[in-house]
Amino acid sequence: MTEPDDLVYHVDGELVPAKEASVSVDDRGFRYGDAAFETMRAYGGEVFQWEAHMDRLRETCEVLKLDHGIATDDLHRRIDDTLAANDLADAYVRLSITRGVQPGKLTPDESVDPTVVVIVKPLPRGGSDGQPVYEGPATLQTVKTKRVPDSAIPAHAKTHNYLNGVLARLELRVSAADEAIMVDTDGHVAEGATSNLFFVRDNALRTPSLDGPVLPGITRRVVLDIAADEGLPVESGQYTPDDVRNADEVFVTNSTWEIRPVDVVDGIRIGDDSNNASGDAGNDASRGETAAATAGGPVTTLLSRLFAARIERSHYD
Amino acid sequence: MTEPDDLVYHVDGELVPAKEASVSVDDRGFRYGDAAFETMRAYGGEVFQWEAHMDRLRETCEVLKLDHGIATDDLHRRIDDTLAANDLADAYVRLSITRGVQPGKLTPDESVDPTVVVIVKPLPRGGSDGQPVYEGPATLQTVKTKRVPDSAIPAHAKTHNYLNGVLARLELRVSAADEAIMVDTDGHVAEGATSNLFFVRDNALRTPSLDGPVLPGITRRVVLDIAADEGLPVESGQYTPDDVRNADEVFVTNSTWEIRPVDVVDGIRIGDDSNNASGDAGNDASRGETAAATAGGPVTTLLSRLFAARIERSHYD
Repeated sequence: MTEPDDLVYHVDGELVPAKEASVSVDDRGFRYGDAAFETMRAYGGEVFQWEAHMDRLRETCEVLKLDHGIATDDLHRRIDDTLAANDLADAYVRLSITRGVQPGKLTPDESVDPTVVVIVKPLPRGGSDGQPVYEGPATLQTVKTKRVPDSAIPAHAKTHNYLNGVLARLELRVSAADEAIMVDTDGHVAEGATSNLFFVRDNALRTPSLDGPVLPGITRRVVLDIAADEGLPVESGQYTPDDVRNADEVFVTNSTWEIRPVDVVDGIRIGDDSNNASGDAGNDASRGETAAATAGGPVTTLLSRLFAARIERSHYD
Repeated sequence: MTEPDDLVYHVDGELVPAKEASVSVDDRGFRYGDAAFETMRAYGGEVFQWEAHMDRLRETCEVLKLDHGIATDDLHRRIDDTLAANDLADAYVRLSITRGVQPGKLTPDESVDPTVVVIVKPLPRGGSDGQPVYEGPATLQTVKTKRVPDSAIPAHAKTHNYLNGVLARLELRVSAADEAIMVDTDGHVAEGATSNLFFVRDNALRTPSLDGPVLPGITRRVVLDIAADEGLPVESGQYTPDDVRNADEVFVTNSTWEIRPVDVVDGIRIGDDSNNASGDAGNDASRGETAAATAGGPVTTLLSRLFAARIERSHYD
């Protein structure tokens, strides 16, 4: 496997050493964050949920009116070439398409010569037989920074404008939490800075609805599919931070973390009896506090196992 | 004067040909738009309102908790060197400071090795004896894209996250207007995509208050100073697009445009009698519709003349 310092990236149609991989300072991706991107995982040499990522990339580019003109197959080939050049099968893959260099004014030209960047790095698979990329369950902290409303920038567009999440993460310097809970301007829970949020209460799986400013995460979608297949009651709706704090189980999802259990929210231990007046009948038998802190509650554990099995089936069989 | 193709920029401490000026694809300025910037004008070789730009840059970096550690004098020297290398006295100057390359995660490290970029291009002065950089008065169009609220990203931070303005400008493809009027999530006028907005009504100069999501523009500040010096009544407050449409005069300001008259807002001619039931007593004598369309109304003209005189006095005497 390639050492990080010797990685090769793919920029503007060429494989280049990571250390020399660059974009023009006049590129709109740099000047304005005027770029679409996807963060993906490759398992066994194949990108997980490729079609779903390409669908979302297409939606982002529609929001940006960024007609890049590059075929999906061409993007796939660039990623394959980059993985091969680094001798990587299990990897983090970041694909960015910018509006390229245009005359120095904010209004974009319709005609686009896009800049395409593929960044990879080694990322061993997690799952049942693997090692998660994170160290233990996450602690979450509700932050003051509100999620940007859809009326200002649609949340389903995944772009290089990521300061909203950066500001949320900066707030965590006080609490040393792993991830932020961001609420919308009405005070409803939206998502983490880089993750979707789920919780279990009264034996139902709950997650903020996409009606709010919530990125339609690919891992979120897969988790909902698995829950439906298992017949788990699922509700997507509007929730407050208090709903999350009082949940029986909480976890966050993204392509890198997959399903990451959460043990503490706003300084409150999740599923702890003293904070949990009801709904713990079915849980205490199957986990002690130690188990909760290492692997999440029973629903989280079940979903993680089924998620890993799905990857196993489609990528390593 | 240097031809655009032969420009020299300043990147990371070195003068480099513009065509080779680049940043790493791992730079947070590219990945997340995690960078502060200022757009400035040099007149007669000196940056206009240097101290004010440095104050605002400092405020942006405080919002971003970006402790770049570079002295103001050092930034000044880099700009001077860039202007000199291009043999430019009257120029557009863009200074960006990014959080640099850090390990690939959203949470910023406290320790920063910033990337500093200075971009210049020739920009002859406007003003009384010069030629404005714009072609005639602007047409404005109120757009659906709302200004990002301060609770999500503070508007007084000037950063590379400029998609909100890009989306506003993309809406202008329908109307071919020059600039957007962006309202906040409550429907009050905030600003243009790259400009502050002023209007005149009942002989008072009015502009959206900085209590809303409004960038504290340097040109805005200078215009307010001039108005105060002249004893012009000034009001900063909350306004609707209707207030702007029904104004006697409208203009927009930024460092590049300086003071740009506006002749049409949302398809309505400004100061036209048929849309102007009151407050036109003092104006009709001093301008006909032709004058309004080329140079703005009397207050706009007065402010433009005094703005040019201020530059003349401080930069060319």
